[in-house]
Amino acid sequence: MKQVSIALLGCGTVGKGVIDVLLMNGPIIEEQLNTKITVKRVLVRDINKYEQMNLPSAILFTNNFQDIIDDEEISLVVEVMGSADFAKECIEECFKRGKSVVSANKDLIADYGIPLLKLSKEKQVDFQFEASVAGGIPIVRAMYASLNGNKIDEIIGIMNGTTNYILTQMTCRGITYEEALREAQVKGYAEADPTNDVSGYDAARKIAILGTLGFHSEVTFRDVQVEGIEKITAEDIRNALEMGYVIKLLAIARQDKEGISLNVHPGFIRKTHPLANVADAYNGICVRGNCVGDVMFYGAGAGSLPTASAVVSDIMNVVLHEHIGVTGQRDFVSHEAKLKPQASICSPYYLRLLVQNTTGVLAGIATVLATYHISIRSLIQKDETADIAEVVLLIDQSSHCVVQKALKELSELTCVHTIANAIRVIEV
Amino acid sequence: MKQVSIALLGCGTVGKGVIDVLLMNGPIIEEQLNTKITVKRVLVRDINKYEQMNLPSAILFTNNFQDIIDDEEISLVVEVMGSADFAKECIEECFKRGKSVVSANKDLIADYGIPLLKLSKEKQVDFQFEASVAGGIPIVRAMYASLNGNKIDEIIGIMNGTTNYILTQMTCRGITYEEALREAQVKGYAEADPTNDVSGYDAARKIAILGTLGFHSEVTFRDVQVEGIEKITAEDIRNALEMGYVIKLLAIARQDKEGISLNVHPGFIRKTHPLANVADAYNGICVRGNCVGDVMFYGAGAGSLPTASAVVSDIMNVVLHEHIGVTGQRDFVSHEAKLKPQASICSPYYLRLLVQNTTGVLAGIATVLATYHISIRSLIQKDETADIAEVVLLIDQSSHCVVQKALKELSELTCVHTIANAIRVIEV
Repeated sequence: MKQVSIALLGCGTVGKGVIDVLLMNGPIIEEQLNTKITVKRVLVRDINKYEQMNLPSAILFTNNFQDIIDDEEISLVVEVMGSADFAKECIEECFKRGKSVVSANKDLIADYGIPLLKLSKEKQVDFQFEASVAGGIPIVRAMYASLNGNKIDEIIGIMNGTTNYILTQMTCRGITYEEALREAQVKGYAEADPTNDVSGYDAARKIAILGTLGFHSEVTFRDVQVEGIEKITAEDIRNALEMGYVIKLLAIARQDKEGISLNVHPGFIRKTHPLANVADAYNGICVRGNCVGDVMFYGAGAGSLPTASAVVSDIMNVVLHEHIGVTGQRDFVSHEAKLKPQASICSPYYLRLLVQNTTGVLAGIATVLATYHISIRSLIQKDETADIAEVVLLIDQSSHCVVQKALKELSELTCVHTIANAIRVIEV
Repeated sequence: MKQVSIALLGCGTVGKGVIDVLLMNGPIIEEQLNTKITVKRVLVRDINKYEQMNLPSAILFTNNFQDIIDDEEISLVVEVMGSADFAKECIEECFKRGKSVVSANKDLIADYGIPLLKLSKEKQVDFQFEASVAGGIPIVRAMYASLNGNKIDEIIGIMNGTTNYILTQMTCRGITYEEALREAQVKGYAEADPTNDVSGYDAARKIAILGTLGFHSEVTFRDVQVEGIEKITAEDIRNALEMGYVIKLLAIARQDKEGISLNVHPGFIRKTHPLANVADAYNGICVRGNCVGDVMFYGAGAGSLPTASAVVSDIMNVVLHEHIGVTGQRDFVSHEAKLKPQASICSPYYLRLLVQNTTGVLAGIATVLATYHISIRSLIQKDETADIAEVVLLIDQSSHCVVQKALKELSELTCVHTIANAIRVIEV
């Protein structure tokens, strides 16, 4: 049996998972590859910490990347550190020294994926990154190797487990955002500083990667318009349910004649849509191609073993590529991306206004909307006895820009107390 | 730009779709491969029929396979004929002459997949078959290239669009099997002779393919225990709904210590399970791996363009393999399959009995079940005024063999008029 020695950069949740999977499923992996894969070296900050963990004693821990790059026996480096810049330097060094790389690092791929792919091609080494989007769900390879005969029109997904857990708890149990966030933190789904998840930045990186693959155009995190779930209230969730919708944090990449748009924002989605049933920390991604129609992928988008499942499949493919004598790297096309102006993106909206409970309020609101040629699909005024009443509207397809102007004008009406929320309705 | 000439064997729904996709998405395909793919020759039975269709005039139609095999310019042959034996001969001939093959033919792959993969490896050519399972859903490549680091415990899916359409209509509208079948025939979802679909043979071929890939063991159509949906009545569907379930035709491959089991049968599945929401002619497949957990794939399992989407991705991968200098073929491991005896497969069951509306009936039934150590989860006797009453039971985990014996003894009770149905309950 052949032998391949690999190194890990990082030994956190994912790195530890990779070591576990290679041990646990060693026989299955070996018989497919006729190769034994051994983790020889692992780069960590604090060596002492890991030497006390129950990991195979043959693993050499180091805090010096040079030990790994200089080891000629290591032909494959697995980067599972997170954070972009140091990882990028390490990976470039690996490529230059003829080592292939597998990365699970979405920050890195979202920012530097295409330049790194180009460098790996130039250096005739492999670069794989299945785990960088949606953990164990095999969406990355599907985009470039299975749906590649399609013109991709739309990618829409729930790509962040933390926010999906929070919204699911709010939906099922009627609790507030703050209560659900606290629970998620207790259960380990959300970090102490939850910003990266709840503000949508994590999902934005993933949709940038899928957009790049789907549209063959280089888009990055900075091209994504991001809006988080912090403003979603129990009232919004309840109103959505009453109207036949659930609220999800959606990452959306679309391409039409005007260009590419990339958005992360909370959205109303019909209860009957397959994505509506993606609950808790699970992820779900729908891809619409001009031949295949809608294809959906569902599974665990994070976690040690699910993410390691994707990393190990990449490791296996790199090893296999060596065996079947691959001499070149797939060419990832990347055009200059033509971005569509956000202001022109249209969708229906849910609006929740808090208004003075006086006569003429609805007339005032309707008049403003009519000025902007916004038609009202439905309007519910809740039977409030208090001074402040709630008005819930569903308005027809309107551009972001027009809605913003109308909201500004509405907020200036004396009868309007607060624009509590404006959430896009996704019609898929 | 490079040029690749291909031939199609067959020009039915899928073959026509392949021609359409290559034309429609030509620019996207060309820029990814830096290659123009041209359909040069097409094998058909009746040349005149196709020459009158609105297909690119450069295509040469022939009814003689020799024209294709002798054409040195053709390096890739796409087999979209259906039926196994003639297709197998043609493909073997292609391999021997150094031509790679893409096949969408589930009958062929289910029966001869592994021997053909071995031959293709021996002859150093490519053999791809993504479209042979679930049309446009990228499940085949996911099994061997993305989930390959997992020990696969279970594959469970809705893999036949015709039966899913029929069951969906029965569920949503309360119509009978016969009415739904007739509708499916009128809409073109079911053939005049629907046996292959409704009896489960089509799904059996697909689960044999996925089982082979997932368990690295050669299993064929003949290893699948098959039961169709012909006996499902409107009453069964209504009872299922009342108990929180829907009925789906499920294709199930499982592997445990006792071996592999392959089954196609109608099953009760909880309304909240993702597969329960796979409606109409759509397909859905859940794969459970020991690292990744549950992953689900959903999409159009048939149809001209969705299936062609998978075929074209295979064509592109074969062309790409040539470009990136692949000199070998992936090694598909195949052990001798150790099959688990069907009699020992356990599941809960739904039983529907028609009984004489007399006293002592329930006691009689319960006594027989107790004799076989079968415990009753729930029992509903419908308040019937007629002579014949309906008794609906959910029984706990019991082996197929024991349930069959108990049913035989129940049918011999004088108070039992008919065993109307016994349907397995799938707990996933």
